[in-house]
Amino acid sequence: MKDQIERALAEIWFGPDGLVPAIAQQHDTGEILMLAWMNRDAVRATLTEGRACYWSRSRGRLWRKGETSGQVQQLRELRLDCDADTVLLLVDQSGVACHTGRRSCLFRAWREGGWQIISEPEIAPDLLYPQARD
Amino acid sequence: MKDQIERALAEIWFGPDGLVPAIAQQHDTGEILMLAWMNRDAVRATLTEGRACYWSRSRGRLWRKGETSGQVQQLRELRLDCDADTVLLLVDQSGVACHTGRRSCLFRAWREGGWQIISEPEIAPDLLYPQARD
Repeated sequence: MKDQIERALAEIWFGPDGLVPAIAQQHDTGEILMLAWMNRDAVRATLTEGRACYWSRSRGRLWRKGETSGQVQQLRELRLDCDADTVLLLVDQSGVACHTGRRSCLFRAWREGGWQIISEPEIAPDLLYPQARD
Repeated sequence: MKDQIERALAEIWFGPDGLVPAIAQQHDTGEILMLAWMNRDAVRATLTEGRACYWSRSRGRLWRKGETSGQVQQLRELRLDCDADTVLLLVDQSGVACHTGRRSCLFRAWREGGWQIISEPEIAPDLLYPQARD
């Protein structure tokens, strides 16, 4: 499996910063949950562990989605685009994807001349990140 | 409308290169068609014209999707994520999104230890880009 994963990695074009954009989509409903970034180690971890692992640009480290919040994304399938510079993760999202407590991060829609919020939090952020209360 | 569009732009965080990643999704089926990039002018053009316009990184210019191939993406809705650094275009794709003639650019799936092609071209690329024959 290790060799297979290295072959998977060899086909992906990581940009000058070593990152590839990764779209996460709920596998059965088609809902787009978020866009994040992956480096080689993140793709390795995702394929090895069967759950989404990204590279956090703000924290400068690997980020196993749900490691703090418990809102894990189980990997159903990894896809690659024609230019090999975008990946798509079909996932099964536990709970919510967004740090605001919303199911999807893409919760603002341009309607009638303004950005309108089109979904509400399903869980309070301070329940997702209790340590942030300190 | 011009002022409204400038207000829309003011909320979007364009990266150091002036670009934001843009996911294109077929509005009714949920299929992810492609990921491309937009600068301010591309977002302006998209909202003004009601069809997807991207910034082509390879060509270094605005790229009205379908300008050569005729495979236009009519904009149904523009969405923005929680961090304002990703946009989602819900579109109605005419024909195919991919330059290979496939409906979606994300046509490779990691299955059984290899990248497998999971969809076939619906139209021959040289019919999409006849001038490329010259």
